Amino acid sequence: MMKQFHEDTNARISAPSGEAAVIGTRKVYVAGSRPDIRVPMKEVVQRLGDAETCEDGLLKIHLYDTSGPFTDPGASVDIRTGLSAMRGGWIVERGDSEILQAPSSEYARQRLERHRQENYHFPSLRVPRRATQGGNVTQMHYARLGIVTPEMEFIAIRENQRRETLPDLLKKQHPGDARGASIPGIITPEFVRDEVAAGRAVIPCNINHPESEPMIIGRNFLVKINANIGNSALSSSIDEEVEKMIWAIRWGGDTVMDLSTGQNIHETREWIIRNSPVPIGTVPIYQALEKVGGKAEDLSWEMFRDTLIEQAEQGVDYFTIHAGVRRNLLEAAQRRLTGIVSRGGSIMARWCQAHGCESFLYTHFEEICEIAKAYDVTFSLGDGLRPGSIFDANDEAQIAELKTLGELTQMAWRHDVQVMIEGPGHVPLHLIQENMELQLKYCHGAPFYTLGPLVTDIAPGYDHITSAIGGAMMAWCGTAMLCYVTPKEHLGLPDKNDVREGIVAHKIAAHAADLAKGHPGAQARDNALSKARYEFRWQDQFALGLDPERAMGIRRALLPDDAESKE
Amino acid sequence: MMKQFHEDTNARISAPSGEAAVIGTRKVYVAGSRPDIRVPMKEVVQRLGDAETCEDGLLKIHLYDTSGPFTDPGASVDIRTGLSAMRGGWIVERGDSEILQAPSSEYARQRLERHRQENYHFPSLRVPRRATQGGNVTQMHYARLGIVTPEMEFIAIRENQRRETLPDLLKKQHPGDARGASIPGIITPEFVRDEVAAGRAVIPCNINHPESEPMIIGRNFLVKINANIGNSALSSSIDEEVEKMIWAIRWGGDTVMDLSTGQNIHETREWIIRNSPVPIGTVPIYQALEKVGGKAEDLSWEMFRDTLIEQAEQGVDYFTIHAGVRRNLLEAAQRRLTGIVSRGGSIMARWCQAHGCESFLYTHFEEICEIAKAYDVTFSLGDGLRPGSIFDANDEAQIAELKTLGELTQMAWRHDVQVMIEGPGHVPLHLIQENMELQLKYCHGAPFYTLGPLVTDIAPGYDHITSAIGGAMMAWCGTAMLCYVTPKEHLGLPDKNDVREGIVAHKIAAHAADLAKGHPGAQARDNALSKARYEFRWQDQFALGLDPERAMGIRRALLPDDAESKE
Repeated sequence: MMKQFHEDTNARISAPSGEAAVIGTRKVYVAGSRPDIRVPMKEVVQRLGDAETCEDGLLKIHLYDTSGPFTDPGASVDIRTGLSAMRGGWIVERGDSEILQAPSSEYARQRLERHRQENYHFPSLRVPRRATQGGNVTQMHYARLGIVTPEMEFIAIRENQRRETLPDLLKKQHPGDARGASIPGIITPEFVRDEVAAGRAVIPCNINHPESEPMIIGRNFLVKINANIGNSALSSSIDEEVEKMIWAIRWGGDTVMDLSTGQNIHETREWIIRNSPVPIGTVPIYQALEKVGGKAEDLSWEMFRDTLIEQAEQGVDYFTIHAGVRRNLLEAAQRRLTGIVSRGGSIMARWCQAHGCESFLYTHFEEICEIAKAYDVTFSLGDGLRPGSIFDANDEAQIAELKTLGELTQMAWRHDVQVMIEGPGHVPLHLIQENMELQLKYCHGAPFYTLGPLVTDIAPGYDHITSAIGGAMMAWCGTAMLCYVTPKEHLGLPDKNDVREGIVAHKIAAHAADLAKGHPGAQARDNALSKARYEFRWQDQFALGLDPERAMGIRRALLPDDAESKE
Repeated sequence: MMKQFHEDTNARISAPSGEAAVIGTRKVYVAGSRPDIRVPMKEVVQRLGDAETCEDGLLKIHLYDTSGPFTDPGASVDIRTGLSAMRGGWIVERGDSEILQAPSSEYARQRLERHRQENYHFPSLRVPRRATQGGNVTQMHYARLGIVTPEMEFIAIRENQRRETLPDLLKKQHPGDARGASIPGIITPEFVRDEVAAGRAVIPCNINHPESEPMIIGRNFLVKINANIGNSALSSSIDEEVEKMIWAIRWGGDTVMDLSTGQNIHETREWIIRNSPVPIGTVPIYQALEKVGGKAEDLSWEMFRDTLIEQAEQGVDYFTIHAGVRRNLLEAAQRRLTGIVSRGGSIMARWCQAHGCESFLYTHFEEICEIAKAYDVTFSLGDGLRPGSIFDANDEAQIAELKTLGELTQMAWRHDVQVMIEGPGHVPLHLIQENMELQLKYCHGAPFYTLGPLVTDIAPGYDHITSAIGGAMMAWCGTAMLCYVTPKEHLGLPDKNDVREGIVAHKIAAHAADLAKGHPGAQARDNALSKARYEFRWQDQFALGLDPERAMGIRRALLPDDAESKE
């Protein structure tokens, strides 16, 4: 299997047959204030029969694009060397970090020595980088110093989607009900800076992941979505995971979490990060658990610390840390119908019980901040006590943990470490608003990053839909990023088709929320698509949809053979 | 094709291979106050390891069941003779209707004479029945006289789902946010009567459809969903439509609309109604248009009237009547981005424009009421001016039509004719509440029956999801029935798989709304499923899900061959 990897995967991915540009769109780059700021967008060009919307009869619409160079027919990508380090120069010119001679993590050094000759090893390793002694390289740190980084400018251009170029008809939209969000008409680099400085938004961009295209997560920006991938010992290999990442961003994944388990987590992650234009998140405790053979009680701060550094030096952009699972909350969790369902939460609960003491994630949180700020790893404070059922929604354990996450947020902010807060899970529709309000109250406006929530438990096999319903509502109320759920939720690991279904379902939820909040320009895509639909311009309609290939495929299958040319 | 029908379809449907009972459930009948009230439910029996939830370790959960005798292995169904006339005795004993010697509709008599020998003719025609001269056979009429009909008692038992038998743990649920609904702890037959008398709920049950199992549509009852079927000249035949109806109710369709077009609409409808345990709705103007060769300007009140009578005597339970598309509203509709997208609305708009006068549906509405009350056909007042895009949502044309529908509601109520109001369409999330409030205000509390609404236009191929998001929100706000949308919306006609996807997506939305409203007992199914999930009782989890076969199929595909027996 691994032998095949080098020979096949490369060829398959660097020349993806018929999978380069998404149908009806082409990749363009919008220039910033300096030549190395080039913001990718998907451009849809439509020839209109009337002069109503644009002077020359050509309408150009620019769509947010997460898909990276893989959809640029002009870019050549070799996954064995990885993507080019677009942010490399920006990181170097700040002069506040240094190249390391070797990984600081003992485990990383071991893997390097022992497995360098194995063919699952990434062939073009980058040397790791770290803040100079006592330094702080987080975007929040810069923002608080009043600095607008190239990352922030990149993001401002990206979020605007060139909406200033749209004809008036398409710009028309319903006044939103922002529910506390304050979204300006045009996003400026300074606005990005201010939101990051205030902690209301995060830019996950580890200095060891210079390949990433900067993006922002905050309630005053477009709602984002995350896709989870990750092999398990049984079900998939490294090449499949790289493929899944590329697939996930093709359909609109804004970030990807690598939840791999099994033997080669370290190397899988390297392949993924080196080829990923989107931020990569992980749950470091998963890998730590693998290192102690799955026995939670054998975990220790020292080896967890080494794991954090190992991953930070590979370039992980955000860490899920379940530091809110405190010993005194476990009793409340035991009174539940469905106990603790978060994997990270269960691991830490077991450790606390076995050792009869407070979680080392909590007691060492300050040291974790020190690590994060040396690489700019964003925290995603995990909700280890999230409810696993409608029954347990918004219960005592969950809310108590949320308060703890609020305390930890303030601790991280004292280090200028960026923070987002993970949220449930399973919540009935009418308790979503309350959940969001509690998060804002206890966590001081840090961005909320929620799994769904699922609004009912009765639809195994369709939980991407139960989650999209809750996600739309939650994002309208203020959640900044939705973690996708696939049709396989509760049943097994998703395959490629599930990834696509899950992503599109949550892109719908995210966009529905943008519309509801009245995000400036959000309705332009709906307007353009509806106009194309009303005028029977089928190809134009497809190009503006979230999944042009699916829509076109359905349409073609329904038509008699000779009708296609007329469309 | 038609030749095959008699030979094959019957065999296929009366002995559906492996498709009888839904996995993990069995059909039971709950007795009412008289032996001929037997309310079907799906019973799920689970053997629990603990004594916590029930005395003998057996937990029985009863689920609402729309699937009819087709999922009862003990029932023999022959689609050539149709279902047994469960309500036949109730209708006769009221003594207010009479059997007709021949259909009153000229068109129906012609079809009977000319095509009796054709093999697409339903072989076991029922004789039609009509109220005795000057009579009124509507459930609203009885309700207003203070009569509790067997239909009302049947519904009360059905809506309660035997929740009084549940153990306390499963009965626990979050207090809801009813948003104006008033749902009692136990639904009594008298409550059903009062809601129907007030016009807040409808029981679509034409006296010529005695095969139907009574159900109710109202905001103080469980949220219902409708599935559309219907052949077009090209794409399907009668047997496929009967199969689709049986398929739709298997997955939870509470009513089915037959939107057939083409040559044999009359006969297709006969086959469907004779085999349908759920109310059947139609849009009579579609058939009227076929009768005049598709030329809207050739429509006339006389032939439309004949069509209404033709369909009423076949047993159609509710008519969509686009009587709100008035001449003076057309100008506002022309200012839209996407004009008039309702087919019925477009037909009537064309007629009004061609004749330069007011819609005959509006001017003859009083006579339409006279027809409806002679058979108990419920009105579904069509929103011919519903928005076809987010852009046009809640616009002047839509709201003006809604006011007209409110006037017509009061006119119908003066005849004791049951009314529901059709709603949009395309509405962004934050305008749904407003839409619902306007409907309640202008339409005096008549039940709202909405298509979705779709909360964005940008997801062709996934509109069942955009619709489920809007539908959940709308039903929480008070919509009584959701019309499903399938993945093929805007692209083509749904096949069987699309029907299933569309139904389950909207069952999720409906149930999410029941939970949010705090419908008593609604959470029991979630609780039972979550408990099974937490205890790794896979089969029990599947049985309680909306689609046990899908969930089980996914799980089995993921397991190694030998693992299955352990589950």
